[in-house]
Amino acid sequence: MSARRILIAQGGGPTAVINQSLVGVVLAGKKNKDINKIYGAVHGVRGIVNQDFVDLNKENNHHLNLIAKTPAAALGSTRDKPDQKYCQKIFKVLKAHQIDTFFYIGGNDSSDTLQILSKESKKVGYPLVCIHIPKTIDNDLLINDHTPGYPSAAKFVSLAFSGINLDIKSLPGIYIGVVMGRHAGFLTAAASLGRKNQGDGPHLIYLPENNFNTSQFLSDVKKVYQKLGRCIVAVSEGIHDSKNLPIAAKIQKNTEKDAHGNLQLSGNAALGDMLAQLVRRKLKISRVRSDTLGYLQRSFLGCVSKVDEREAREIGKKALLYATKEKRSGSLVIKRVKEYGVKYDLVNLSSIAGKTRFMPKKFISADKNDITNSFIRYLRPLVGDDMPECHTLRSRYVKKVF
Amino acid sequence: MSARRILIAQGGGPTAVINQSLVGVVLAGKKNKDINKIYGAVHGVRGIVNQDFVDLNKENNHHLNLIAKTPAAALGSTRDKPDQKYCQKIFKVLKAHQIDTFFYIGGNDSSDTLQILSKESKKVGYPLVCIHIPKTIDNDLLINDHTPGYPSAAKFVSLAFSGINLDIKSLPGIYIGVVMGRHAGFLTAAASLGRKNQGDGPHLIYLPENNFNTSQFLSDVKKVYQKLGRCIVAVSEGIHDSKNLPIAAKIQKNTEKDAHGNLQLSGNAALGDMLAQLVRRKLKISRVRSDTLGYLQRSFLGCVSKVDEREAREIGKKALLYATKEKRSGSLVIKRVKEYGVKYDLVNLSSIAGKTRFMPKKFISADKNDITNSFIRYLRPLVGDDMPECHTLRSRYVKKVF
Repeated sequence: MSARRILIAQGGGPTAVINQSLVGVVLAGKKNKDINKIYGAVHGVRGIVNQDFVDLNKENNHHLNLIAKTPAAALGSTRDKPDQKYCQKIFKVLKAHQIDTFFYIGGNDSSDTLQILSKESKKVGYPLVCIHIPKTIDNDLLINDHTPGYPSAAKFVSLAFSGINLDIKSLPGIYIGVVMGRHAGFLTAAASLGRKNQGDGPHLIYLPENNFNTSQFLSDVKKVYQKLGRCIVAVSEGIHDSKNLPIAAKIQKNTEKDAHGNLQLSGNAALGDMLAQLVRRKLKISRVRSDTLGYLQRSFLGCVSKVDEREAREIGKKALLYATKEKRSGSLVIKRVKEYGVKYDLVNLSSIAGKTRFMPKKFISADKNDITNSFIRYLRPLVGDDMPECHTLRSRYVKKVF
Repeated sequence: MSARRILIAQGGGPTAVINQSLVGVVLAGKKNKDINKIYGAVHGVRGIVNQDFVDLNKENNHHLNLIAKTPAAALGSTRDKPDQKYCQKIFKVLKAHQIDTFFYIGGNDSSDTLQILSKESKKVGYPLVCIHIPKTIDNDLLINDHTPGYPSAAKFVSLAFSGINLDIKSLPGIYIGVVMGRHAGFLTAAASLGRKNQGDGPHLIYLPENNFNTSQFLSDVKKVYQKLGRCIVAVSEGIHDSKNLPIAAKIQKNTEKDAHGNLQLSGNAALGDMLAQLVRRKLKISRVRSDTLGYLQRSFLGCVSKVDEREAREIGKKALLYATKEKRSGSLVIKRVKEYGVKYDLVNLSSIAGKTRFMPKKFISADKNDITNSFIRYLRPLVGDDMPECHTLRSRYVKKVF
């Protein structure tokens, strides 16, 4: 049987290019004669249960291409994690609408949802093809060289720290920028990409792959400050102590958890403010500033990597291809080919679902407070070739008269 | 006497286009045969006292044009506010280096510094021409239609909230974004520029021009949330109660003040976190997020209004013209000519220095929780014609089967 009625949904935190993948599936689906209906579920799996479907065949291609260039989930998203009962509700709706293929664009939580769904569909004998299309600014999906959404978010973080580097050079002090990334430090590491001249920041980078030690942190900051008269720090929201307790959790009274059991780390700035206060008190430095980069990292309008948007589109098309040719559930992955190309593959959901990929050791400096050139080589081709540049005065000092 | 040796410095918080004005003065100065030396003071007035001068004649024009496109102060900045003793030190250095014209690129604090300097120079009989070149993302200088730096920062804030609007539509909840602006709400108001469709956020905008009342705020948020299931709030860091006490100060134990007596509002996120916590507790809404846009507003690499960079360059050139032709101290101002042109003028320092311009009443909605279309008409030509656009799905809902 060919795929006849397909359903697409978007899950988890939105990205700058999640709609490229949506439009990739829809445009490929519209071209495929075997596909009669292309539905979109509004707000992810919750939209399925509520039968909130839109008919994507009705969108014209020109308008779809405009939507593809718009950040955040055009269909709406959700953080719901279906249990068995939830899945039964989903099947009921999918059966009633004769859906045979479900594309879910999301991160490791969304692939986990698909895995549950796929298992349940087998149990109840409903032949549902579940295709996971990767998307996450965290870049933490196994097997993938990188995930759609990450390059654009990395571009944002890089441009943010490039600007901060100049700002703090103008008015020296300590700056602590908190970057998204629960368990994986890829996004925080991207803060390093704009470094160009000797002394450029960020001077210190703390990742969740390492244990965070406050006295080591203070000693690192002090050393940089004594040398340069300023210090820029990039720190991941997910940094934790040696007992794996998030530093952010230590200072928050009411910790909020989502349906996947994830601690709420974004959406407040307690971590950055606490670290700034620590530096102020312990190192007696007066100008200490902290920013939490927040939701802008994944949503800022117009900050898109061209490589990212191209790949996100392509992976949507490939997803439809795999679904119609191979008719099996799985997760699309991106693999790197030399410097720099990519190829796509379909792997089993179980090899992606609910698992986390961390920064490889070769990307982290020996001191564990910076990244390596190997990481820079990894990231550079992902952000595209149109990164704005910084330039500094080269003129010599005039001789003092007295 | 023609201007022979000129000095340029940059003061206060950097902007995306402050180097355009610097390069405007330098390039015009290099063309002027009567000018022998073009010095730059490193880190503002502090650089004068320390005789930290660089010889800007030595920079080639191509490289200067690259620096012009780089955000933040290429010469370094300062927040020092000279008193009489400080001024005496400045004169000593300026005399020794035979400087006769001093261009200071900065906001109302920098023009205040110039005014003190100009008065002191008259007192001691040193004929110093003090030229203030306006720059501030706060847009709060009197007489000016707008100030260089504001359009680019406004573009950043607009693009940030456009993205946030889509993000919060994807995953609904309450979002509170805190925007820079101590006394004037122009930058916070810019959050409105991206609104396009019915229901687009920000839905509420709180400016320092009005008293902030927490119960009114909660009631406003509740009303929007009940209607749309989400609410995006743009709030100025400078909001204050009816006794003019900043809300941010109420919740900060250690309030830091700069040399100008300004309370330190940026560089921490206590205000946003406090407002979010208030909504969470009082309205019993679980998904409440807050971001403090922070230093990215003035430094983010690549977010520049073309209009802003053109005008910032032009005003630098005009500053040199006024200094050499009219040989009198003053502050450059931008005036608007119809829709949309500008003309420049030189006004007395006293009409700008240390004074604050607020949002005119016609820009603020009757409810004092939004802006008017009149503000949108004011802002639109400033950000340039290359703002990225957002698009949303238009497809109809599929009929429910059961």
